[in-house]
Amino acid sequence: MRFGYFGSMKAEPGHRDEVVRILLAAAAGVRDAGCHLYVVGVADDDDQTIWVTEVWDSKEHHDASLRLPETRAAIGRAMPLLTGEFTSREFTVLGGLGLPSGPG
Amino acid sequence: MRFGYFGSMKAEPGHRDEVVRILLAAAAGVRDAGCHLYVVGVADDDDQTIWVTEVWDSKEHHDASLRLPETRAAIGRAMPLLTGEFTSREFTVLGGLGLPSGPG
Repeated sequence: MRFGYFGSMKAEPGHRDEVVRILLAAAAGVRDAGCHLYVVGVADDDDQTIWVTEVWDSKEHHDASLRLPETRAAIGRAMPLLTGEFTSREFTVLGGLGLPSGPG
Repeated sequence: MRFGYFGSMKAEPGHRDEVVRILLAAAAGVRDAGCHLYVVGVADDDDQTIWVTEVWDSKEHHDASLRLPETRAAIGRAMPLLTGEFTSREFTVLGGLGLPSGPG
């Protein structure tokens, strides 16, 4: 079954857009690692928080991606810009609209 | 800018899978209403909650979809099966991987 993740991270004041750029650049590189979806969002009423929604072939694909050199480099660039406040929810993707067809 | 939504709903005990079927059927019909993504998920550690992630052309498209007869019918079928506990987070989609290209 495909693995879904929805989470948020909070940037230090003034650094949200820089973190967004890091995430969008990283998103472009994870398709080959089994990532189907990596959506980055922000809200008008919160100038520090960034929301990310991800769909992967499996949790194992997601976890393995965190060990890729390019992912580790992106995390290394973003972490100093973050407050350390995160939320996350993992789920099993059952289907819906807009995902490529495939196993799970 | 495209509109994103991540929310959860809680089904009465034993009714989660029925609600999932209602949502998946409804998801198939909203593409023409400006919906790019409608992902339905559940988790092994919670047999009542359903998570939904959506991306729309705009918040106006999303709001208008709630007034469609087929959406209202789906809501009417699902509501009696739900506890009334919801969470939601709206956000502006800045980009990422896996979304069709387009405005916003």
